[in-house]
Amino acid sequence: MTVQNHVFDVPYYQPIADECALFETAFNKGLPLLLKGPTGCGKTRFVEHMAAKLGRPIYTVACHDDLSAADLIGRYLLKGGVTEWVDGPLTRAVREGAICYLDEVIEARKDVAVVLHPLTDNRRRLIIERTGEELQAPPNFMLVASYNPGYQNVLKQMKPSTRQRFLSTTFDFPDAETEIQVVAKESGLDVERTKNLVRLAGHIRGLSSLDLEEGVSTRLLIYAASLIAGGMPVDKALQYSVVEPLSDEPDVQVALRDLIAVVYG
Amino acid sequence: MTVQNHVFDVPYYQPIADECALFETAFNKGLPLLLKGPTGCGKTRFVEHMAAKLGRPIYTVACHDDLSAADLIGRYLLKGGVTEWVDGPLTRAVREGAICYLDEVIEARKDVAVVLHPLTDNRRRLIIERTGEELQAPPNFMLVASYNPGYQNVLKQMKPSTRQRFLSTTFDFPDAETEIQVVAKESGLDVERTKNLVRLAGHIRGLSSLDLEEGVSTRLLIYAASLIAGGMPVDKALQYSVVEPLSDEPDVQVALRDLIAVVYG
Amino acid sequence: MTVQNHVFDVPYYQPIADECALFETAFNKGLPLLLKGPTGCGKTRFVEHMAAKLGRPIYTVACHDDLSAADLIGRYLLKGGVTEWVDGPLTRAVREGAICYLDEVIEARKDVAVVLHPLTDNRRRLIIERTGEELQAPPNFMLVASYNPGYQNVLKQMKPSTRQRFLSTTFDFPDAETEIQVVAKESGLDVERTKNLVRLAGHIRGLSSLDLEEGVSTRLLIYAASLIAGGMPVDKALQYSVVEPLSDEPDVQVALRDLIAVVYG
Amino acid sequence: MTVQNHVFDVPYYQPIADECALFETAFNKGLPLLLKGPTGCGKTRFVEHMAAKLGRPIYTVACHDDLSAADLIGRYLLKGGVTEWVDGPLTRAVREGAICYLDEVIEARKDVAVVLHPLTDNRRRLIIERTGEELQAPPNFMLVASYNPGYQNVLKQMKPSTRQRFLSTTFDFPDAETEIQVVAKESGLDVERTKNLVRLAGHIRGLSSLDLEEGVSTRLLIYAASLIAGGMPVDKALQYSVVEPLSDEPDVQVALRDLIAVVYG
Amino acid sequence: MTVQNHVFDVPYYQPIADECALFETAFNKGLPLLLKGPTGCGKTRFVEHMAAKLGRPIYTVACHDDLSAADLIGRYLLKGGVTEWVDGPLTRAVREGAICYLDEVIEARKDVAVVLHPLTDNRRRLIIERTGEELQAPPNFMLVASYNPGYQNVLKQMKPSTRQRFLSTTFDFPDAETEIQVVAKESGLDVERTKNLVRLAGHIRGLSSLDLEEGVSTRLLIYAASLIAGGMPVDKALQYSVVEPLSDEPDVQVALRDLIAVVYG
Amino acid sequence: MTVQNHVFDVPYYQPIADECALFETAFNKGLPLLLKGPTGCGKTRFVEHMAAKLGRPIYTVACHDDLSAADLIGRYLLKGGVTEWVDGPLTRAVREGAICYLDEVIEARKDVAVVLHPLTDNRRRLIIERTGEELQAPPNFMLVASYNPGYQNVLKQMKPSTRQRFLSTTFDFPDAETEIQVVAKESGLDVERTKNLVRLAGHIRGLSSLDLEEGVSTRLLIYAASLIAGGMPVDKALQYSVVEPLSDEPDVQVALRDLIAVVYG
Repeated sequence: MTVQNHVFDVPYYQPIADECALFETAFNKGLPLLLKGPTGCGKTRFVEHMAAKLGRPIYTVACHDDLSAADLIGRYLLKGGVTEWVDGPLTRAVREGAICYLDEVIEARKDVAVVLHPLTDNRRRLIIERTGEELQAPPNFMLVASYNPGYQNVLKQMKPSTRQRFLSTTFDFPDAETEIQVVAKESGLDVERTKNLVRLAGHIRGLSSLDLEEGVSTRLLIYAASLIAGGMPVDKALQYSVVEPLSDEPDVQVALRDLIAVVYG
Repeated sequence: MTVQNHVFDVPYYQPIADECALFETAFNKGLPLLLKGPTGCGKTRFVEHMAAKLGRPIYTVACHDDLSAADLIGRYLLKGGVTEWVDGPLTRAVREGAICYLDEVIEARKDVAVVLHPLTDNRRRLIIERTGEELQAPPNFMLVASYNPGYQNVLKQMKPSTRQRFLSTTFDFPDAETEIQVVAKESGLDVERTKNLVRLAGHIRGLSSLDLEEGVSTRLLIYAASLIAGGMPVDKALQYSVVEPLSDEPDVQVALRDLIAVVYG
Repeated sequence: MTVQNHVFDVPYYQPIADECALFETAFNKGLPLLLKGPTGCGKTRFVEHMAAKLGRPIYTVACHDDLSAADLIGRYLLKGGVTEWVDGPLTRAVREGAICYLDEVIEARKDVAVVLHPLTDNRRRLIIERTGEELQAPPNFMLVASYNPGYQNVLKQMKPSTRQRFLSTTFDFPDAETEIQVVAKESGLDVERTKNLVRLAGHIRGLSSLDLEEGVSTRLLIYAASLIAGGMPVDKALQYSVVEPLSDEPDVQVALRDLIAVVYG
Repeated sequence: MTVQNHVFDVPYYQPIADECALFETAFNKGLPLLLKGPTGCGKTRFVEHMAAKLGRPIYTVACHDDLSAADLIGRYLLKGGVTEWVDGPLTRAVREGAICYLDEVIEARKDVAVVLHPLTDNRRRLIIERTGEELQAPPNFMLVASYNPGYQNVLKQMKPSTRQRFLSTTFDFPDAETEIQVVAKESGLDVERTKNLVRLAGHIRGLSSLDLEEGVSTRLLIYAASLIAGGMPVDKALQYSVVEPLSDEPDVQVALRDLIAVVYG
Repeated sequence: MTVQNHVFDVPYYQPIADECALFETAFNKGLPLLLKGPTGCGKTRFVEHMAAKLGRPIYTVACHDDLSAADLIGRYLLKGGVTEWVDGPLTRAVREGAICYLDEVIEARKDVAVVLHPLTDNRRRLIIERTGEELQAPPNFMLVASYNPGYQNVLKQMKPSTRQRFLSTTFDFPDAETEIQVVAKESGLDVERTKNLVRLAGHIRGLSSLDLEEGVSTRLLIYAASLIAGGMPVDKALQYSVVEPLSDEPDVQVALRDLIAVVYG
Repeated sequence: MTVQNHVFDVPYYQPIADECALFETAFNKGLPLLLKGPTGCGKTRFVEHMAAKLGRPIYTVACHDDLSAADLIGRYLLKGGVTEWVDGPLTRAVREGAICYLDEVIEARKDVAVVLHPLTDNRRRLIIERTGEELQAPPNFMLVASYNPGYQNVLKQMKPSTRQRFLSTTFDFPDAETEIQVVAKESGLDVERTKNLVRLAGHIRGLSSLDLEEGVSTRLLIYAASLIAGGMPVDKALQYSVVEPLSDEPDVQVALRDLIAVVYG
């Protein structure tokens, strides 16, 4: 699954630490980059932001259990009796000197590693076995991957032989100051009311006793802020955009509502 | 599997809480919506009702173990020697600005998430990799999904990265007043006799000791009411439409018949 | 796998309870019907009987592990260079207003449920996604399914969301009087000698200590009666048609022969 | 995998009990027959013998894990650009009124049961869904199946709904008298020396302490007799045709050689 | 995977016991032969030797997990728009009256047994279902199979119904005298230095305490002898051709080097 | 996945022991070679170096779970209505007399062994069953394979019958002197600062208490040196290129940073 972005307006992104500098260094040195971190903390947005800033198109591939090397490289398709080669998103990125972003890369099938290895060491080559073609990645091609260490299980792990090919950095939710700015800007809600939302988010993320699979994402805060800005009462807006999306367990939902009462009470 | 509904007569639906307002807000803000709740409590009917009210066609997809991204997006089919692209229900919904309803979405294969992610964040884009096409969802496109938290198992769970993209709300059986109205209207049975059926349903749903996988649905009450309205004795009608559909266990069937005797005795 | 029956001679069937009335009511109300019960107690015969009585063709599908939605709905077949759509048995039944009987429905693959859902609620629609066709089931179409609760295991269970769409009734072996009539009529054996066979069957079915997977079916009694009517000694006929078909275990076979000695001794 | 036998010379077969009469009765009554018993006791030979005696061609199908309904019924094959239907062995047997013998039937895939059900009850019909054809089995068609109860495991069992459609009988190794005759006739070894081999076989089959998966088959005795008749010393002949084929375990091989020493010592 | 050998120079083979006589008897009697034994003890070489001696071509098939009946028999291949039947190695062997050698036969898929059964009993027939052809094996066709009892696991075992169709014999490493001859001849190393290698091999094979999956093969001795003959120091040659190929465990490697020190010290 | 290298500039490689001599001997004797060792210690680089030195092209195949024999040998591809045979990398290597390098060979599917066996014993033959072609490997063809004993699990092990066909040697990280040279040369960092990095690597590799899946590779040291040479502060460079790529565990990351503090403090 790919997303091609030819629009070079730089999307809004509020840096957390020095991730922008790291990205630029990796891009300039031709090194692949691995972003680790939880859901909805802005990894995709960050990559889109950097791509635009560097003036490169971006191909985003959301990886999944059945994603194979052919999905990345391309395949022959039969069209009206004629067989035609159709490039996959990785091949297109290499050809155009674009950024290819493999979101949640450990979800992909194992043959993907085969494609990535010669592309992520000093060879920087993409081999299209089916056509016999062999592409030398241009200097402005960059491979970025992400994964969420929180999901890790025994069956799905990145092999060290793949992992040790990437520069890596860990992402986390932005600090309160930054998150308030982001949520207010995206939702149109005033800063004062946004502060409460971000304060609530801090409480939820800090409460390990709640046993949530993940803390509330910035995206859900924006949803909540949007509903409130649209006139929905705060408790309902938070029920639909925070409590229900985070858990199905009645106990956990009660605990979340208690937390809301504390923050808003 | 899709169901296209071009008839805009608004199907009968009796609201339970403020779910209609939530649906309209989500539709207007372009946010995806997740409906949680048990079998046969009216989720499908609700979505059809809202689609008609908003004047949008609806594509319903009942998800299952083998449902893949291609089933939603489309595929090339060979017809009389010519290969032709055939849109899947999701693609059709995006093109027409319709509502796409993914019933029991966690049953679907994991590659479906790949399609949904860029469609459910701020990008709102559907990528048709096979044709190279990329669709920007129009404002009147909406994605609705449902699932039943009661079925959840370890193997099939919605990943937070998918789940935190939806506004969510929980459905439950309607209150007695509403359910009497619905059952009487659908079956043609008089309100007096319908009351007993709904009273029985309340007892069954409340008895956790019975160890039923799910409580009796409104649909089964309508079946029972139909049979009674058609002249079948109450005990037989309830045997065929409540006792037998709910359980194969002789013990549980006896307990259900005892409950019936209490209500009707 | 389908069986089409255009001959409308009503096959012989001896009713056990009010199952004929239930079938007719379900047919008239357009409701699907689920028959539960052990092997060889006459479910298939019953459905064939009712189909003939109601003047409808019948399509019987014996479900199995690999039966998919496409097996029921149809598929494109390549014939001499031309691709041709071929209706599956369910589609044929919907088009002709016939009865479609899904024998042992829980054996089928899970995508079958997707086809059945819109066909078994108030929509009564069959969607043929591959051709883009959508069929409204005519009033004289009826869906009947069967399964054997005795086989149930953890992996194969009917989901409540499917199960609560059917009227259900439990079949069992006919009472002695009826079974004697059936066996005598089918085998040509005199009633006197048939009585002993049915008496034996009662003993076998009642003996839970034997640990048989299922009791002896009416079909096996007919086999035994046929062999005896053809001149085979009773002990040999019962060995080949009752003892050996019921078990491979020497202990169980001895116990069955003891039971035979008691009845015939 | 099928074996067609148009040669009607009756192959040599030495009856053990009244299995010939049972086979003829089943053939005349149109009932399917199930043969149970260990490897190499002559089931295949028996069926070939009866087929020749009844003047019917025989199609033998050795069932296995991947044998599907299509392997039995037939499939479309692409030959030089033209698609041609090719009957499978079961279809050929039904068309010609032949005997179809499914060897080790429980090994086959589960969709095979679907084909066999309407063919083994009073309908006696074979449905070829792919071509839309429906064959009524002629009176001289007969279905015979075999399986070995000794192999049974939890995963592979005949469902009662299939099993209770067959007349069944158990085969075992022939008695000593008969086996001597068979082995001598097949191998050309004199009766005197054959007696020792059959005596040895009796000892091996009786020794449950040896923990062999199966006793020595008549076939292996014929191999041994052939080697001896060809001039090989008895101990070597028995090593190659009895000891080594029965076990890889050094302990068991020693025990078998001890047994040989007892019989021949 | 097949190896066709039309060169009839008899490859060098040093008999261990009377395996040559057994092979010839089996060939003359038309009986299949099963060779059991460890890796690299010369089974393949033996079969090639006998094939050349008997003047028959040989088709060697190295069996594996995915080897199916079609791989042995043949299949239709699409070549330039025309479908062409291509014989598999077994079919070619039957047609030409050659020897077909199935190396490590239990690794193959289970449908292979179906092909072998009618070919390995008195029928000696190969059925090519796809083409409708049926071949009677000529007298100079012979089937040879091998397997290694040491690998046996619960999932992969030869069924007695297959196994009891073969004459069987166990292979082992040659005696020291013979092995010295073989290694010296193949490597060009002088007999004196070869003796040490074979002495070392004897020690390694006898040491059950080392917990090696298999003892050192004659092939590895030839490798070692080749390296030594080419001028490499003995300790390095043995490190690369014996120690490293036998084990990855540091402990075991140390033990092997100690053993080498004892023999060469 | 193959990498073809027609450029014969010998890539820089710093020998560790006598691996170059072993490679040349194996090449000259026509023996296959197995390289064992951890990730990123230079195996691929070594093979490329030797290939260039010997003037042979190299085909590198990164093996994975789904890599099958056909991926190595080739397959028919449909191109514009015409079916065309396309050689796989192994076939190309045999035809051209090149070096074929199977990286992480035990990851490949089991049917690969079938291809390798006749190519790695005295036959040295590659059989292309699909085309009926049979290639005799020329003297300048060589097969090299690698695997990492550290990954070994019960399901994926090299069978002795495959393993005992290769000369084997173990690779490890280069000694400090050599590694400093390599890292400095590749990154452009001065030797003084490189020494610290290699010292750090020694500490990390020696600390078994850290429970890392693998020690830090030379490649990651080069990454770190590159970043430092580019002006990034040492602690950040090590965070992105050593700490984060080695572990997701906060405890382990802290331990690694402590180690860095010790070396740089």
